[in-house]
Amino acid sequence: MPEKKPLILVTNDDGITAPGIRALIEVMNTLGDVYVVAPDSPQSGTGHAITINDTLYCDSIKIDKEQPQKEFSCSGTPVDCVKLAVNEILRRKPDLCVSGVNHGSNSSINVIYSGTMSAAVEAGTLGIPSIGFSLLDYSMDANFEPVKEYIKAIAIQCLNNGLPKGVVLNVNFPKVNEGEIKGMKVCRQANAHWIENFDKRVNPLGREYYWLTGEFVNEDKGEDTDEWALHHGYVSIVPVQFDLTAHHAIKDINTWDL
Amino acid sequence: MPEKKPLILVTNDDGITAPGIRALIEVMNTLGDVYVVAPDSPQSGTGHAITINDTLYCDSIKIDKEQPQKEFSCSGTPVDCVKLAVNEILRRKPDLCVSGVNHGSNSSINVIYSGTMSAAVEAGTLGIPSIGFSLLDYSMDANFEPVKEYIKAIAIQCLNNGLPKGVVLNVNFPKVNEGEIKGMKVCRQANAHWIENFDKRVNPLGREYYWLTGEFVNEDKGEDTDEWALHHGYVSIVPVQFDLTAHHAIKDINTWDL
Repeated sequence: MPEKKPLILVTNDDGITAPGIRALIEVMNTLGDVYVVAPDSPQSGTGHAITINDTLYCDSIKIDKEQPQKEFSCSGTPVDCVKLAVNEILRRKPDLCVSGVNHGSNSSINVIYSGTMSAAVEAGTLGIPSIGFSLLDYSMDANFEPVKEYIKAIAIQCLNNGLPKGVVLNVNFPKVNEGEIKGMKVCRQANAHWIENFDKRVNPLGREYYWLTGEFVNEDKGEDTDEWALHHGYVSIVPVQFDLTAHHAIKDINTWDL
Repeated sequence: MPEKKPLILVTNDDGITAPGIRALIEVMNTLGDVYVVAPDSPQSGTGHAITINDTLYCDSIKIDKEQPQKEFSCSGTPVDCVKLAVNEILRRKPDLCVSGVNHGSNSSINVIYSGTMSAAVEAGTLGIPSIGFSLLDYSMDANFEPVKEYIKAIAIQCLNNGLPKGVVLNVNFPKVNEGEIKGMKVCRQANAHWIENFDKRVNPLGREYYWLTGEFVNEDKGEDTDEWALHHGYVSIVPVQFDLTAHHAIKDINTWDL
């Protein structure tokens, strides 16, 4: 750990009052000086959205009166929160940014839709060691107790070792009871996608509308994937990069008649 | 080209009436049967956001009365548009999805904020060859004439050759006059980031708010990057992947004491 107390930024996409972020704050308070800058309302599925055509509010608030963290509630997206925190609220670059704990999975292809992971990625682009945490339980009554020790262990390793340049961590926890987690595995993102089943309805004025609902399709049988680890009771840790270049495809495209 | 007339899905993030998408539709009408499913309002910077806590409207409309494409205006994000198109509107999987032409750059790190590119990526996750096009001119009066021949050439190659599995194309055009484009280069994403300069103001009720404004910082001197190509008058073509795993980092993280 750094000699001085580390400065830790906490955010999420379920909103600043969600049980998942309260659990994350509790763990981070044992490790450093904690600043929370998180959305004032749920922002699930916002991906890497930023607010460019609207105003942003960001107000100091106090939720847990007996806890030491400083908290700010922001009208923007998770990525806006990170940008505001780093550029307007914190006096120096944080030593660690943690996002979550998300209520629901951000494994596999879900990483690209995830506001939780996008916040972590944004901090990563600014050179901040950064981790997104998610629990495979969408309920607001989800039990975060079994995962707190793992969050702490991963955060300590990240503070001690840093992360390779251009890499952030996507950590997902299986939904199991205390003592049932089998361990942690460093994994690759499973090759999966969503098939949508839109629920078509008619509003009271007679106009058709849709609700997006979908089915997750995992095509990947690999035992080195996050999906495999989670289905077998392990915590999955996927190192994620934001250089999206498909380097292996450059040669292919160069054969085109352009 | 496939023997039957290809089915082409067109979307964007600037909204269905933006000049950029009208230019793209015009080119695609020369190549196949065109369906447009695009946002009913500007959605710049929405990233890979999806609409999960709100309803979605999607209505058939006719904008260019003398053109053959079918058009649908959607209340959702660019990614919602692709999901709706593929699952509700099109009778079969399209042969090509094109997104744009975006008014403004989606090169380098901008790819992660871009609704235009996220739409292309979404189509890619569904196995559809897919290309995002952007012109480095934010103006609504931007001149798309010089880029039409390049869009056509790239789309034809994509229809003829397909794309490697898990890869979509991020194509950016420099802002130059007709005849001044020097050629096309297949590139990697430059290593860059944004430094935000929030514009802090006070609203009429006395409450502080912010506008997000930023400065693009390119740390990458490489001559094989999209930024280099664009600054030197070339069209940049970056193959983009949505397996975000930083495979090179798995070994590193496995050395941690977890």
